[in-house]
Amino acid sequence: MSQEQGLTPRAQDFSAWYNEAVMRAELADYSPVRGCMVIRPNGYAIWELMQGALDGMFKETGHRNAYFPLFIPQSFLAKEAEHVAGFAPEVAVVTRAGGKELEEPLVVRPTSETIIYASFAKWIQSYRDLPLLLNQWCNIVRWEMRTRLFLRTTEFLWQEGHTAHADEADAMRETRQMLGVYRRFAEEWMAMPVLTGVKTDTEKFAGAVRTYAVEALMQDNKSIQAGTSHHLGQNFSKAFGVQFQTAAGGLDYVWNTSWGVSTRMVGGLVMTHGDDVGIVCPPKLAPTQVVVVPIYRSDEERAAVGQVAERAVRTLKAEGLRVELDAREGMKPGAKYYEWEGRGVPLRLEVGPKDVAKGQVFAARRTGGKAPIALDGLVPGVRAMLEDIQAGLFRAALQRREANSRRNVTKDELIAMMDGPGGFAYGGFCGALECEEGIKDATKATIRVLPDEEFRSPSPPAQCVWCGAPSVSEAVWAKAY
Amino acid sequence: MSQEQGLTPRAQDFSAWYNEAVMRAELADYSPVRGCMVIRPNGYAIWELMQGALDGMFKETGHRNAYFPLFIPQSFLAKEAEHVAGFAPEVAVVTRAGGKELEEPLVVRPTSETIIYASFAKWIQSYRDLPLLLNQWCNIVRWEMRTRLFLRTTEFLWQEGHTAHADEADAMRETRQMLGVYRRFAEEWMAMPVLTGVKTDTEKFAGAVRTYAVEALMQDNKSIQAGTSHHLGQNFSKAFGVQFQTAAGGLDYVWNTSWGVSTRMVGGLVMTHGDDVGIVCPPKLAPTQVVVVPIYRSDEERAAVGQVAERAVRTLKAEGLRVELDAREGMKPGAKYYEWEGRGVPLRLEVGPKDVAKGQVFAARRTGGKAPIALDGLVPGVRAMLEDIQAGLFRAALQRREANSRRNVTKDELIAMMDGPGGFAYGGFCGALECEEGIKDATKATIRVLPDEEFRSPSPPAQCVWCGAPSVSEAVWAKAY
Repeated sequence: MSQEQGLTPRAQDFSAWYNEAVMRAELADYSPVRGCMVIRPNGYAIWELMQGALDGMFKETGHRNAYFPLFIPQSFLAKEAEHVAGFAPEVAVVTRAGGKELEEPLVVRPTSETIIYASFAKWIQSYRDLPLLLNQWCNIVRWEMRTRLFLRTTEFLWQEGHTAHADEADAMRETRQMLGVYRRFAEEWMAMPVLTGVKTDTEKFAGAVRTYAVEALMQDNKSIQAGTSHHLGQNFSKAFGVQFQTAAGGLDYVWNTSWGVSTRMVGGLVMTHGDDVGIVCPPKLAPTQVVVVPIYRSDEERAAVGQVAERAVRTLKAEGLRVELDAREGMKPGAKYYEWEGRGVPLRLEVGPKDVAKGQVFAARRTGGKAPIALDGLVPGVRAMLEDIQAGLFRAALQRREANSRRNVTKDELIAMMDGPGGFAYGGFCGALECEEGIKDATKATIRVLPDEEFRSPSPPAQCVWCGAPSVSEAVWAKAY
Repeated sequence: MSQEQGLTPRAQDFSAWYNEAVMRAELADYSPVRGCMVIRPNGYAIWELMQGALDGMFKETGHRNAYFPLFIPQSFLAKEAEHVAGFAPEVAVVTRAGGKELEEPLVVRPTSETIIYASFAKWIQSYRDLPLLLNQWCNIVRWEMRTRLFLRTTEFLWQEGHTAHADEADAMRETRQMLGVYRRFAEEWMAMPVLTGVKTDTEKFAGAVRTYAVEALMQDNKSIQAGTSHHLGQNFSKAFGVQFQTAAGGLDYVWNTSWGVSTRMVGGLVMTHGDDVGIVCPPKLAPTQVVVVPIYRSDEERAAVGQVAERAVRTLKAEGLRVELDAREGMKPGAKYYEWEGRGVPLRLEVGPKDVAKGQVFAARRTGGKAPIALDGLVPGVRAMLEDIQAGLFRAALQRREANSRRNVTKDELIAMMDGPGGFAYGGFCGALECEEGIKDATKATIRVLPDEEFRSPSPPAQCVWCGAPSVSEAVWAKAY
């Protein structure tokens, strides 16, 4: 791909399109370190907006940020049996430091349950110390074999919430609450519709009692797990001795939850909204929401439109909008449009001599459509368009998902669907591991979630799509990232 | 130290006091990993406020955030000779990952010049790509032998700015500009006066041409290097081949700068303002600026003062102030005061029945002094007090520093000073390594900076304090963290 050529069309090769779209927008770059990426300023700015929105929601729900060590003694990981089995194969290990071999190797955190609950054991004595509601923003390392920018990298950035509760009900309430926060973030900020539900045991977090997830369907009809919220029961508190004096005077182990979303979300944003020109940022997460481009042919025209363009930028910035003026000389407007479109800027305001004469700017939406906005109504006009773009992106993504979801599929339909267009396939599930694995072997599709009530079919299937035995739960299958 | 006992007085054992003050305020805790610490919510909240202030200043000066890999191939570190000599002894090394021995070990970043400038080489082609002004917030690992909470830990959090420029003058301007940003941050936010100046070759960053620093004198009369700004010349651009087409059509290597401050700043804040009761937060960096404590003896009184206290909290919060209401029952006001004082909250508002009757609250400053504030002037009254506390902390710290600085010291005075009370000793310096080392051997003091003009003595010394040869620059000696 050169800057002059278009991107590979999505319909031709979605995976190539994705990489090109990310590179063209300068969101990220490959690094000299195997499987690691560089998050470039354009990509990091999206992540910062995501962080800001999520951090606000975490604090509103009573959580505080903290920071725990990057390194975890190998013996800690081993204290919870399922946990170590799940993570040991993919950890990076420090064996040498300060010029010496370490007595006990240190694992670079693949997740922080163990190191955090070791501290919880020191801090929690009584029911009065509960609930303890913490969150951590940090980097994570998991040695992945096949990596993709943002979607799967050896190192990634994320947040991990870790909480301790006096009883199971409170821990469950927290687990569901944070799933709701992720759903709200996905829908309201990313304009990305999600299914919520519980994972099967095969797909749950290593060490959790239950894992809940938000799942979104990408434009290639594969699903992305965009966030998870785990009910950990007393698995870790027993492994790390996190005990507390109950209100009744007894001694009990705390109930833990953990929940996280990562820079993978940036990949989800790209694959939800991008088009063949490049990425499309939902206005609420767009580092630049509006770009103003003056258009002129003479110095005289330049002076006139320049003044109006600058004033428009000042006015919009004063209202807290994220605006750039592109007054670069020696570059044609079309080339500028192309660049800003590739970066996904949702709204472009063109200011030409005719616009100045009419007291207006001409607004072009990244998602299509052009209309003038009167200068004396610039702020409300721009705000309305941005809100409309945000809402339109969500609507389009929801429509696409529903158009690519099929309910009550038969075995043959499930196979045909996963062999062909993909999408979300709803069907009955008997709960047996054999059926889950049989389907995976035959179709590469996995159960993304056993959907929450809201997402279940009006008349849920009575039989397992695979074996015909009575269904214990409706399930949603898809191929996944 | 138990919660009931006071802290070890600073005058008795400053080091013990420091640890106790940090622990009492719950800023941090020891971790099971050698030399690493846990930053607890109270400490992390201070760091978040520091980050917010600094990040705003970086962005105002045109920098953008990005993120580069945690791991650095060992061969990268080796490309700049001084750099590898300086850092190799203290790195942690990943030798095993994903269950296999790595072909090339990966160093956990002790600083990111090498990995970042490898990307710069890809991104920079022409003078039009310059200056490139990036910053990264991340964790850093340096294997330290002797660690102290915040002041020196194996892992710490920091920001590292990395920039590339078309010529030396622009790189120098940037280096000085960022030193100025650090000074402004230290003075205006931390209420911590600093000296600025250049480091001697002995003390400069491994790989830099020149290192500038901000240095602050702590209450035990030891200096802390609170931030550094490096002019890297073309050392790294030559090592990593960061070349660009100049405006004149030639080819040249870029000029780099890098600059950083870390969570060490939190330790500096504690040691600048803390007293024998605990830490004292300057209002601008206080996670809780105001705590409101209702005081009552009966249920009737509780209802009346509770209402006023809650209204006060709402009013102050609506103005963007960081306020907590401490309405815990079964706890005496004195116990609450003690707890909030230990956390360094700058202002406490007591609301008792008499205050309600008089339409006032009673304000107690963490730094001493009590006065009523009328409820109908609550917001301006509180704001004025917080500003006054902030200004007072800076003034007191500046006075203390000046009282513990001595100019034009003789050799004997330098020895006596470093053997006794410590402080900043200004004297002449011939520039010879032998004198620098001689002084260090004899006194444990090092040259903190060759001070910038503003900080130099009105009639600077003509002779080296140690050898009597002509002085080439005034220097400031101190023992340091």
